[in-house]
Amino acid sequence: MRIVVANVNTTEAVTEVIRAQAVAIAAPGTEVLAVTPRFGPPSVEGNFESYLAAVAVMDRVRAVPEPFDAVVLAGFGEHGKEGLAELFDVPVVDITEAAAHTASLLGRRFSVVTSLARTTGQITDRLALTGLSSRCASVRATGMAVLELETDPERAGDRLAAEAVRAVREDGAEVICLGCAGMAGLAEQVRDAAGVPVVDGVPAAVGLAELLVRQGLSTSKVGGWAAPLPKEITGWPISGA
Amino acid sequence: MRIVVANVNTTEAVTEVIRAQAVAIAAPGTEVLAVTPRFGPPSVEGNFESYLAAVAVMDRVRAVPEPFDAVVLAGFGEHGKEGLAELFDVPVVDITEAAAHTASLLGRRFSVVTSLARTTGQITDRLALTGLSSRCASVRATGMAVLELETDPERAGDRLAAEAVRAVREDGAEVICLGCAGMAGLAEQVRDAAGVPVVDGVPAAVGLAELLVRQGLSTSKVGGWAAPLPKEITGWPISGA
Amino acid sequence: MRIVVANVNTTEAVTEVIRAQAVAIAAPGTEVLAVTPRFGPPSVEGNFESYLAAVAVMDRVRAVPEPFDAVVLAGFGEHGKEGLAELFDVPVVDITEAAAHTASLLGRRFSVVTSLARTTGQITDRLALTGLSSRCASVRATGMAVLELETDPERAGDRLAAEAVRAVREDGAEVICLGCAGMAGLAEQVRDAAGVPVVDGVPAAVGLAELLVRQGLSTSKVGGWAAPLPKEITGWPISGA
Amino acid sequence: MRIVVANVNTTEAVTEVIRAQAVAIAAPGTEVLAVTPRFGPPSVEGNFESYLAAVAVMDRVRAVPEPFDAVVLAGFGEHGKEGLAELFDVPVVDITEAAAHTASLLGRRFSVVTSLARTTGQITDRLALTGLSSRCASVRATGMAVLELETDPERAGDRLAAEAVRAVREDGAEVICLGCAGMAGLAEQVRDAAGVPVVDGVPAAVGLAELLVRQGLSTSKVGGWAAPLPKEITGWPISGA
Amino acid sequence: MRIVVANVNTTEAVTEVIRAQAVAIAAPGTEVLAVTPRFGPPSVEGNFESYLAAVAVMDRVRAVPEPFDAVVLAGFGEHGKEGLAELFDVPVVDITEAAAHTASLLGRRFSVVTSLARTTGQITDRLALTGLSSRCASVRATGMAVLELETDPERAGDRLAAEAVRAVREDGAEVICLGCAGMAGLAEQVRDAAGVPVVDGVPAAVGLAELLVRQGLSTSKVGGWAAPLPKEITGWPISGA
Amino acid sequence: MRIVVANVNTTEAVTEVIRAQAVAIAAPGTEVLAVTPRFGPPSVEGNFESYLAAVAVMDRVRAVPEPFDAVVLAGFGEHGKEGLAELFDVPVVDITEAAAHTASLLGRRFSVVTSLARTTGQITDRLALTGLSSRCASVRATGMAVLELETDPERAGDRLAAEAVRAVREDGAEVICLGCAGMAGLAEQVRDAAGVPVVDGVPAAVGLAELLVRQGLSTSKVGGWAAPLPKEITGWPISGA
Repeated sequence: MRIVVANVNTTEAVTEVIRAQAVAIAAPGTEVLAVTPRFGPPSVEGNFESYLAAVAVMDRVRAVPEPFDAVVLAGFGEHGKEGLAELFDVPVVDITEAAAHTASLLGRRFSVVTSLARTTGQITDRLALTGLSSRCASVRATGMAVLELETDPERAGDRLAAEAVRAVREDGAEVICLGCAGMAGLAEQVRDAAGVPVVDGVPAAVGLAELLVRQGLSTSKVGGWAAPLPKEITGWPISGA
Repeated sequence: MRIVVANVNTTEAVTEVIRAQAVAIAAPGTEVLAVTPRFGPPSVEGNFESYLAAVAVMDRVRAVPEPFDAVVLAGFGEHGKEGLAELFDVPVVDITEAAAHTASLLGRRFSVVTSLARTTGQITDRLALTGLSSRCASVRATGMAVLELETDPERAGDRLAAEAVRAVREDGAEVICLGCAGMAGLAEQVRDAAGVPVVDGVPAAVGLAELLVRQGLSTSKVGGWAAPLPKEITGWPISGA
Repeated sequence: MRIVVANVNTTEAVTEVIRAQAVAIAAPGTEVLAVTPRFGPPSVEGNFESYLAAVAVMDRVRAVPEPFDAVVLAGFGEHGKEGLAELFDVPVVDITEAAAHTASLLGRRFSVVTSLARTTGQITDRLALTGLSSRCASVRATGMAVLELETDPERAGDRLAAEAVRAVREDGAEVICLGCAGMAGLAEQVRDAAGVPVVDGVPAAVGLAELLVRQGLSTSKVGGWAAPLPKEITGWPISGA
Repeated sequence: MRIVVANVNTTEAVTEVIRAQAVAIAAPGTEVLAVTPRFGPPSVEGNFESYLAAVAVMDRVRAVPEPFDAVVLAGFGEHGKEGLAELFDVPVVDITEAAAHTASLLGRRFSVVTSLARTTGQITDRLALTGLSSRCASVRATGMAVLELETDPERAGDRLAAEAVRAVREDGAEVICLGCAGMAGLAEQVRDAAGVPVVDGVPAAVGLAELLVRQGLSTSKVGGWAAPLPKEITGWPISGA
Repeated sequence: MRIVVANVNTTEAVTEVIRAQAVAIAAPGTEVLAVTPRFGPPSVEGNFESYLAAVAVMDRVRAVPEPFDAVVLAGFGEHGKEGLAELFDVPVVDITEAAAHTASLLGRRFSVVTSLARTTGQITDRLALTGLSSRCASVRATGMAVLELETDPERAGDRLAAEAVRAVREDGAEVICLGCAGMAGLAEQVRDAAGVPVVDGVPAAVGLAELLVRQGLSTSKVGGWAAPLPKEITGWPISGA
Repeated sequence: MRIVVANVNTTEAVTEVIRAQAVAIAAPGTEVLAVTPRFGPPSVEGNFESYLAAVAVMDRVRAVPEPFDAVVLAGFGEHGKEGLAELFDVPVVDITEAAAHTASLLGRRFSVVTSLARTTGQITDRLALTGLSSRCASVRATGMAVLELETDPERAGDRLAAEAVRAVREDGAEVICLGCAGMAGLAEQVRDAAGVPVVDGVPAAVGLAELLVRQGLSTSKVGGWAAPLPKEITGWPISGA
């Protein structure tokens, strides 16, 4: 099985973190192809950047030589899943939904702890469309930028753990979802601090993608995520590939 | 006052329809600048196209020489409002929300009648995020493509009117929203057939944009729609302008 | 265009505040007719008074010589919009809904800051029926009575600003709605303190009423707000006019 | 125990129907005082009439010599409960909420069958504020006016039974609520036709009022239904009593 | 009339407390039959115990010689109502729903104050299925075990009162529901401390059960609570009776 | 890895169907231990039976010699997940939630097609607590009993396919969930008829259980699903094992 895992930002180091998480969870026979968009922001922290990243991811995944068996969208709370679901016949799993569905199996309420406060609204909206708002106790932010996870992991871990503890004590969270694809290395610290299961969306999504493939399941094509109509599109693909 | 009204597709004829609607409602002193994206699909009928259009609109509006006083996103049910809201200091009004808010003033429940069935889910999601799901009786489709509004307006009008009548009789709609920016000329026919007020999102949005400007109101910048962080973005703007 | 703006209480000074706000936003050709009920309480602070005011407003507006083009109900969170909508063929806009719809264009979540705590529940219910509960972060009260806005505007402004700041910091509000028709003069102070857009329902409603008229739109008469059946009603109109 | 049961319309014959229902369910020691408003419409079929009736009922109940132990608002889906709850220290029970709470004990979903279609929206709103929307399968109308229940009871019964059957078969109702205070005599026919329990709001409300009194419970006065502030109110009480 | 009131735990002392409450509210002609399950936990504090208690209650009530007129399930927030509703033709009232419906008549929002924090989620879920989540301000816990109500009633009362005060001040509760069948003796203390009506589910449920019987109403048998199909069930009844 | 898969009814043939599905999806190193309750009904079709089955499953799984790595509750729409989640440290996955979460990855809306109409309400409630009501288009029933799936599979398949087609055409379903653990062999027929992905809860749940184990995740023990308090429980375990 071959799974394409798409980072949403252009920072290769984040792609490597994602790749490592994906490889670690993937079954023995699964090949992970982690890709980086050819344009867009080095970190995605807001709607403008997220819409741009959505298109950059579609542009990049489209350039991956077929066949592949599934696509994982590795940006927490980002736009684009429905577009990818339309473009490909294989299953598409977004790490936001993967984390939320997984967390819902483990406790009555989960909280998301993410980077900057400006992204919490966008995450809240994505969870609302996923249908899982009633399972979400809160979306909290550490106030640290995405790339600070790379440059100051220790402080990031401390802040993340502190917010997770508050989510459990003050908001009634029973599970924590890491709200950023690049927080991989910090799950253990958060778990130890908060005393609850910590869900990382990348392994959750890669595992779910594998599981859909094993069940022979893929995106429904009769409704909202049907394949695009054949149509001449000016300037697409954007990267020209 | 100067209002930028952005078509979401690359079809100039649709931009002209939108421009005419905007000009017709605008107050005497208001200048309407109707713009067409420099890339993207000739009609937007699905999520892939809608995400691409969202970026193409941001790319195009960014190239409009300042100053302007407001931006209208003239694609019904399309992505992108939050991105535009971040990019500019002036108010941004999406015709979907404009139509839904306007219809809510006129009756207990409204229905949207749009073109292809594949877009009803996307419209439903936008209304859900707008918060007005409980005011929406149904989202119906005529089964005709967006550009058929141009090529076969008579049949489009008949189909639209027929669905509007069904929305009123079967779904309890008391108001109809036209679910496509290019349906301007058909409002009267629909109103006559269905016997209820018919809201066209383009005049609704242009009027609301003017009204926000007159009240000295613009997008809040403290939360989810704050200006993007300063950041080097590869390949942006896409059109190079 | 001629717009009737109805104060809900019998205090002429409040009617004057409302009239001034209405005139300030109205387009050049619009005549504002601000009216005061002929009976009822000097301030409306609770359901008993609000129901009485609803009837007093219907009684008063009914006595306005036709023609007029729209009616604005200028009591925040008060009862009566549906009754007015039934009685007249012209559009009726309630300042509560006008403020909530307007605020929803400007940010993800708004808070209302009103006078007495006893009225917050009623406002919450009105917003729920408007469908915009999910956009409302909180309804807060300053604890000052409506008429203290007239007698002690300085203290009222300080308290209002303080609650607005709390709404932004603690509740996640990105926009503030002034929760009383008589708070007009305090918007600037609140905006400066809270750093977010401040919506005043009176100009919002007058502007929306004008906009509906310009679009040729009025209340749907096929459903819940159809004209009353012809019927002999004992004691109506109450003022005998 | 002494319970005031207030008809919402001025038709004495309906008051008599209500009184009979109330007396039939009341416990041996309970005195029922059925009252008719001194002004307002002969039947309440819409929001304008309902707001007027709300005030007329408050005006009428205020004129009942104390002491009494509870008040029942006997108009299905009508306005006014919150106002009565503020005005009196004794418990106030609305037949709409009484029917809905009672029906919720008897099955998963209930439907309301009422008179004219124009009132279904108002009933829907009242149920929404009661919190029981998710338990309501549908609100259906027979298309017959309230007073036709008096003038053509046979046809009314047939139409009511027919709608009840549809509610059970098509909407999944497991319980039927009679949507009008004057439908008392028709419950048996509806039950026989639809094969489900039929709840009449008047006995439900009178019984609940008695039960609250027996438990020593009354309206909370700390929040939204606190007693009105002492205040000079022009023209109140309206009937001058 | 004969009403079976089923304790959910095996502690006879709690059954006695429940019996006393039931007898105190019951009408003169009503016989109360308080029963204790033949197996299960001495107190029910969690889902495992609650499911077991649900079956133990069904097993115990089934052994009560007919005829009886109604069944009350006297465990706050516990499982089992739907099973009892299927098993018997007479009405079944759960004290959770009885308390929530009763509280909804008395104020805009109620809070539940229960024993251990681990049971708050289960109570929240029951209220959600009852449909009354929007009327519930909070579910709070004292942190004391159910049986400590017996062994240390003074401390239990103080803790309960303290949480009730917090619910009113911090959560906006206007009514308090006692979240445990064994809290009967503490209502007065809570009411005095919190200044709001306090609803005890046992009298509320017994009164409602009587009231349903007096109205000739019982569980609907056409849908989700229809009688079980005739079927050989291994090991049932569990107690062999 | 060793996964316990618990049938909810006492029919060994159904356990075999479930075992086969579980084995088919399980990864090479996974041992499936399919178990049958020692008491309870031969098929579970209603709440009484479902509560009994919940306890029977807890009784049966408790008797499985440790260690095992996860538990799957293989009864669609049945009670008991929260009890199992409390009893064991390993993850517990219910096939209802597994199917609903899986279907949500594949399309905007899913429908459940189950056996008897009397169970649709219970399924609806389970989905509501899962939080996924907004993703559920409908719950439909074939009208065939659970054991008829064994005795008349051809007719069962036809009826199932017919309801699935209706769910897609009339309710807007984009994915179908098989609403019974014993429908395994019929997925292909349904998929061919309805033209949408068909999710079978047993493989979905077994795969999710494996995936949780691989991620090192298990039930949160800080809140609603914490381990039962140590307590002497009369008559437990019921089977005496």
